[in-house]
Amino acid sequence: MVTLINCFEVPEAADQRFMDLYAQVNAYMRSKPGYAGNRLHKATSEHAAYRYVNVAQWQSAEHCAAAHDDGFRNLVAKDEWKEFRSVPALFEVISENQA
Amino acid sequence: MVTLINCFEVPEAADQRFMDLYAQVNAYMRSKPGYAGNRLHKATSEHAAYRYVNVAQWQSAEHCAAAHDDGFRNLVAKDEWKEFRSVPALFEVISENQA
Repeated sequence: MVTLINCFEVPEAADQRFMDLYAQVNAYMRSKPGYAGNRLHKATSEHAAYRYVNVAQWQSAEHCAAAHDDGFRNLVAKDEWKEFRSVPALFEVISENQA
Repeated sequence: MVTLINCFEVPEAADQRFMDLYAQVNAYMRSKPGYAGNRLHKATSEHAAYRYVNVAQWQSAEHCAAAHDDGFRNLVAKDEWKEFRSVPALFEVISENQA
């Protein structure tokens, strides 16, 4: 299992525009082989550098890479996405603790 | 439940120094009322902007704020932490999907 974490810069006035775009991409990715769940986080802190953070699990790095295909690229190539800078990277969980 | 996400800038040569500091703070925070679990993620992507991301759950924003007390501040005031810029913020999960 691997984890894709993507941090998004979203101005407060742009929440709805961001959510509309996010919903399109999320629906597409959830249809892909190896998708294993995701949580979209919205900041409650004021002045958060990244107001939205998506944490998604994939069965493998290969599944995740394959899902970022032409269909994905067409979705994120829309001009509307240019408003939202994002910082995506792939991660492994190296330490996990329960309460 | 609230989620604290903290993204850390860690040069590749500094992994061990970061992990030693992280372990001290993590042990401290896990002893606090309202701590509800955490996962430390390490990037597998090359050139990730943030090579470590901690995702921690707290029972409430108040618990999380109370845990960031003098003891916490003393730990993170160490000079060694200056090497590692971090971007912390508090979040709520606004969308959760299973595979």
